[in-house]
Amino acid sequence: MRDFISMKDFTKGDILEVLRVAKELEKKNEELLKNKIVGSLFFEPSTRTRLSFTSAAYRLGAKVLGFDSPDATSLKKGESLRDTIKMTEAYSDVIVMRHNRDGAARFAADIAKVPVINAGDGANEHPSQTLLDLYTIEKEFGNIEGKKVAFVGDLKYGRTVHSLTKALEMFNCEFYFIAPEVIQIPEYIVRELEKKNIKYHILNDYKDVLKEIDVLYMTRIQKERFDNQEDYEKVAGVYIIDKESIVGKCKENMIILHPLPRVDEIKIDLDETKHAKYFEQAANGVPTREAIFSVALGLVETLNCEILEKDIRKSTKIICNNEKCITKFEETENKYVVDKEHEYCYYCNRDIKK
Amino acid sequence: MRDFISMKDFTKGDILEVLRVAKELEKKNEELLKNKIVGSLFFEPSTRTRLSFTSAAYRLGAKVLGFDSPDATSLKKGESLRDTIKMTEAYSDVIVMRHNRDGAARFAADIAKVPVINAGDGANEHPSQTLLDLYTIEKEFGNIEGKKVAFVGDLKYGRTVHSLTKALEMFNCEFYFIAPEVIQIPEYIVRELEKKNIKYHILNDYKDVLKEIDVLYMTRIQKERFDNQEDYEKVAGVYIIDKESIVGKCKENMIILHPLPRVDEIKIDLDETKHAKYFEQAANGVPTREAIFSVALGLVETLNCEILEKDIRKSTKIICNNEKCITKFEETENKYVVDKEHEYCYYCNRDIKK
Amino acid sequence: MRDFISMKDFTKGDILEVLRVAKELEKKNEELLKNKIVGSLFFEPSTRTRLSFTSAAYRLGAKVLGFDSPDATSLKKGESLRDTIKMTEAYSDVIVMRHNRDGAARFAADIAKVPVINAGDGANEHPSQTLLDLYTIEKEFGNIEGKKVAFVGDLKYGRTVHSLTKALEMFNCEFYFIAPEVIQIPEYIVRELEKKNIKYHILNDYKDVLKEIDVLYMTRIQKERFDNQEDYEKVAGVYIIDKESIVGKCKENMIILHPLPRVDEIKIDLDETKHAKYFEQAANGVPTREAIFSVALGLVETLNCEILEKDIRKSTKIICNNEKCITKFEETENKYVVDKEHEYCYYCNRDIKK
Repeated sequence: MRDFISMKDFTKGDILEVLRVAKELEKKNEELLKNKIVGSLFFEPSTRTRLSFTSAAYRLGAKVLGFDSPDATSLKKGESLRDTIKMTEAYSDVIVMRHNRDGAARFAADIAKVPVINAGDGANEHPSQTLLDLYTIEKEFGNIEGKKVAFVGDLKYGRTVHSLTKALEMFNCEFYFIAPEVIQIPEYIVRELEKKNIKYHILNDYKDVLKEIDVLYMTRIQKERFDNQEDYEKVAGVYIIDKESIVGKCKENMIILHPLPRVDEIKIDLDETKHAKYFEQAANGVPTREAIFSVALGLVETLNCEILEKDIRKSTKIICNNEKCITKFEETENKYVVDKEHEYCYYCNRDIKK
Repeated sequence: MRDFISMKDFTKGDILEVLRVAKELEKKNEELLKNKIVGSLFFEPSTRTRLSFTSAAYRLGAKVLGFDSPDATSLKKGESLRDTIKMTEAYSDVIVMRHNRDGAARFAADIAKVPVINAGDGANEHPSQTLLDLYTIEKEFGNIEGKKVAFVGDLKYGRTVHSLTKALEMFNCEFYFIAPEVIQIPEYIVRELEKKNIKYHILNDYKDVLKEIDVLYMTRIQKERFDNQEDYEKVAGVYIIDKESIVGKCKENMIILHPLPRVDEIKIDLDETKHAKYFEQAANGVPTREAIFSVALGLVETLNCEILEKDIRKSTKIICNNEKCITKFEETENKYVVDKEHEYCYYCNRDIKK
Repeated sequence: MRDFISMKDFTKGDILEVLRVAKELEKKNEELLKNKIVGSLFFEPSTRTRLSFTSAAYRLGAKVLGFDSPDATSLKKGESLRDTIKMTEAYSDVIVMRHNRDGAARFAADIAKVPVINAGDGANEHPSQTLLDLYTIEKEFGNIEGKKVAFVGDLKYGRTVHSLTKALEMFNCEFYFIAPEVIQIPEYIVRELEKKNIKYHILNDYKDVLKEIDVLYMTRIQKERFDNQEDYEKVAGVYIIDKESIVGKCKENMIILHPLPRVDEIKIDLDETKHAKYFEQAANGVPTREAIFSVALGLVETLNCEILEKDIRKSTKIICNNEKCITKFEETENKYVVDKEHEYCYYCNRDIKK
């Protein structure tokens, strides 16, 4: 039994094991979760992630209970996340949780006796999305090793982009970060890539590199990120792709991914081209999440799949500075992690500034 | 495999086949949909229709996922219906959808690889309601042929009334349209009946014909349809029925139907009389929808059940005039249908005025 | 088949039978409700009760349909509870209902052909909570007989406290009512205890009796109950318990219960002590509700489990005075019950003042 909270818990070996299980489960139909109950707690709405986890649970023979928004719950009566988790662990065999607070998933995993699967905790992590992205790349190319991956759009705030970059580092990928300056990839990620001697490129147009890249990973640019409407209008158009701008101008087998929902950054005339793999990607959420359930509950044999050991300490003085961290809202044990070069919050993964 | 979008797709033979399957499924319990997942997408709330489809799915052994209102969905993030359907087809084996736009169901069926069942699309169609109405009439009388059917209430806007009229035409029924002038049956329906030489009567009181009719089909009169409150008050009372106004004054075996929910147009003292069949009608929704699922997924043998061929064309010039048509909200192919005498929108079925 | 509406319907023998079944079901896994459908109608949100009933249904092999708040229902169209029940009985084999009106559950049980389980009807009853409380006491002590039970907090409005007191009377328990005066136990309950010669104590601090009691039953004090904020602040602190105030100061095997959700009346440092049994209590909701389903549907053999006979009469003159009673909102039969000394509303159990 293991939790799925953060990509930081995974070795490359772990990831490949989960993808292997996903591949096997996609081929056959096994009721591995027969008589199991999945607690599906969505404190924030999310159709795609929720329905995809539900579909995966159903295909494995499980039943699903929970809520799809906090409106119809005891939260309105002021119940703590701690107590909601204590309740849910009594009613289900595994918990899938989306929460608006950074670090909420790790906190829940500490509380619960049953495995917890993070379906997104604030701006922090969304590991099942990363795993299904990796699954899609592996499925399309046969392997992930050394791929040239371009990220386009909102690279500053995009949790999806950060997590996937982190994971792809292990596979010796080369990165292209394509975005307007105001929403470019954060400095700390760039520094880490340099430290690890990983090739990367900072760009603001995708056209120049279309012939080089294997994966074009699109994301939504959110208007709200811009200080003024004009700045947004100026850049938005540049990052919209369509059939004309792609077909014949990229590698024959380049694939386009997108975590969805899209708004208009990918025109629908691209949908029918061989490059468009975003709907397959969404569909891959099902076998990937089947694998996650099966590994979480220890129902398949796997190598390695232990959570990485960390140097975890408790303190009442070294406190997370992230105002959106779960430590600000629940009575936690104030844990932090000591890593080679830095200390970071055990819950929300943010570096702790002293 | 076939979609259930519009009664226009059905021959009389098709209808009788679906009713035959419903009758069989009502008698026995078969897990025809074992291991199937139903995607239940209610973009507009509807307890009765949603729970009835869910009950039918459960009785056939299926599982159900989806949403019961658009509040907790990606729609809030601006996702198109197109993309929501692309997502759902990956997570389920058949889609049941209610949507507020006219023609949304046909559009969804074009997009989806899995069968789509229309659970109501705006003011356009609600075929499972029509089929359960027909099932009820057949069950009560042994057959539908030649019945004298009175519709009472809101005949102008009532999607239920229009669809059922259309279907009953094939069974040589005689019609009584009983309503205040402002919400009487639309002129185009009357013209069609005349063209086909079908007997009909336009009335504003049900009392005169109570002795003649076999079916009294009640509907709710919505206050909102009236320009002023006074006009409403004037007519509302006339269309309320109770035990006193019905029992002993109608045919011995006359049945009263209502699509429900009722407000006060049928007094509860009628509920215990032998004429009241509206609760049985609601209950008949279960076997009827079991039949719909089974035929949609091709899990029972049926004769004829192919969608009627139509002369479908595309155009960028001939465009639907209905402001509530899905063509105004999604990127469609702008299809229209050429029928003997007229052209109508492929999606919302409205005549196209040129 | 029997309904679960009010603890007034239960003899001591009945209660013990339900607890016996719960105990058996907790040990083994039996699909007693295979192919059954549970209609779960929550007209008021409640996570704990709803998920616990759902989990119980799942563990017995049933499927669940319904709604978790009235927002997405036909109620908005003005449908009566009567008609909602008539609909649901056609789609399910047993109905679990929470409703905001006193007496709604009894009314629903009169309407429905399938068994109705009351999951809380306004300020009236919540019998499954009482049964799981009893189950927890029996499980912890081996029996319920003669226990000394202290209730702390909101004793005036707490439906949970009133129902449990009523049930514990049958087991010769001794009562301690600990609360500020403004929310102390109602006079009519005290009078009844006196009539029955049952020992009780009215207190405003728990500290003095900690050494005597077997069960400390905590409840939430609601700010809204106090006329002014100051009065609330004055008393609130007194009724908060933590590790320091309990451990070593009570009987070795004293247990702390709470219907949950708690706000801050129990500090989390108590959670890990042997006295804290509120999470086990919540977990006991599952086998207890499994027993309720099984008895309601007559799927287990039980002794005695018949609803107690009452002297029920109808009247158009003797009418319930409770403004929140279901009789004020639905067309009921205006039934009332004649008991030895008094007459009370058949639906909401309130005494009828003439």
